[in-house]
Amino acid sequence: MRYLIKFSYDGTNFHGFESQPDYRTIEDELNKALTYINNGKETKLVASGRTDKGVHALGQIAHVDIMVSITEEKLKRALNSLLPNDIHVIDAKVVSDDFHARYMAKEKIYQYKLNMGEYNPIERNYVYQLSQKLDITKMNKAIKYFIGKHDFRAFTETKEKRSSYEREILEATIEKEEDILTFTFRGTGFIKYQVRNMVGLLIQIGLGKKDVDSVTKIIEGKTRSAGYRTAHPEGLYLVQVIYKKDVK
Amino acid sequence: MRYLIKFSYDGTNFHGFESQPDYRTIEDELNKALTYINNGKETKLVASGRTDKGVHALGQIAHVDIMVSITEEKLKRALNSLLPNDIHVIDAKVVSDDFHARYMAKEKIYQYKLNMGEYNPIERNYVYQLSQKLDITKMNKAIKYFIGKHDFRAFTETKEKRSSYEREILEATIEKEEDILTFTFRGTGFIKYQVRNMVGLLIQIGLGKKDVDSVTKIIEGKTRSAGYRTAHPEGLYLVQVIYKKDVK
Repeated sequence: MRYLIKFSYDGTNFHGFESQPDYRTIEDELNKALTYINNGKETKLVASGRTDKGVHALGQIAHVDIMVSITEEKLKRALNSLLPNDIHVIDAKVVSDDFHARYMAKEKIYQYKLNMGEYNPIERNYVYQLSQKLDITKMNKAIKYFIGKHDFRAFTETKEKRSSYEREILEATIEKEEDILTFTFRGTGFIKYQVRNMVGLLIQIGLGKKDVDSVTKIIEGKTRSAGYRTAHPEGLYLVQVIYKKDVK
Repeated sequence: MRYLIKFSYDGTNFHGFESQPDYRTIEDELNKALTYINNGKETKLVASGRTDKGVHALGQIAHVDIMVSITEEKLKRALNSLLPNDIHVIDAKVVSDDFHARYMAKEKIYQYKLNMGEYNPIERNYVYQLSQKLDITKMNKAIKYFIGKHDFRAFTETKEKRSSYEREILEATIEKEEDILTFTFRGTGFIKYQVRNMVGLLIQIGLGKKDVDSVTKIIEGKTRSAGYRTAHPEGLYLVQVIYKKDVK
């Protein structure tokens, strides 16, 4: 039986999502629990995508094939009793055998949280503590230039090689609540570091160190600009993975 | 010179506020940094009160005497550069020599945060993950019985011995935002475990396991009831310590 699993995690104490020898990763913890449930037969899930070291997820999705007979509710409960307290399975359900968590993902929503105010130790691993005032009006103008279909080569690692860098951003907003800013990006997919690099550039614009139109210039330049830094991982959340209605 | 220091901390990785041999405590970390600034002369602060293991503070207050000449702004900066990233000095200012952070504290505000919804790994150290629905109407009625001057003997540890257990609660409210409840208590002072025990009883009332009028019964009984548990520490925040206007 193929199951879809929806789960959340606190990325702070993991060395990222992807399985790695000698490091604690989210994928390894899940595979260990799934293998145990699957009577010791090595079991590997397929997630919608990876997240980097320190990045969190509120609604990550994966699929996995399990041979033993187990109800959805029992699978959820078994996983949560086996998993460490920084990963939590929100939902487990049976899907058709051709469901694929990565290939069938239609859209993803990411959020980035940033504190412009006094450093807050309680949120240091969950909200990036910039502690500098930003010009929100400028950033709100700039973020709109990301919307649409673009070649995002300039917003990934320089060493990152892939067949296509084209992605479509459908929604990009900034919300302000007191000193906390929340950036929301909804798109058809995101390449490595893309969200953190977009936020990094927006921070420079908010600080007045880059112009609003630098977004378009950098996209068109198709090369990683030295004009901004990748925003810290702790402010980033994979919020939701969206599939076609008839799949879920 | 006597300084007032306002600071915040994440209680997760401390063994409570109070200095202890062989354990990492907030008081020891601050005293170490203050001693360094005070040219190596052993320096100890006096806080408004202690907080237990796992409890957080957004606005703890202490006073400390420093012999070396240092401006308020430089003291704040020096402390923040020496302190670990789970303690942060928000403010440092010169006060008169007779200011006393504990004896002169007029009121304190504590908050307690609780999640009635799905377990959230990201907030596991900052919001108590009850993951059960509570009857807010009943709890709102019950919490009002705490307001006023009472003998709170029944809301401390059984072994806790002190000359007076009388404290006055001036304000007690519950706010709901989606599945998160925030309890706020403002009072002239709180004895050990008092807030967590009050919340523990309110949870039992919200679950329907205790009646609304059990608050008054337990206060009047003057003995620790077996009918509830001390609420977990990670939901508790010392939010503010209030002094007479002319002191600060």
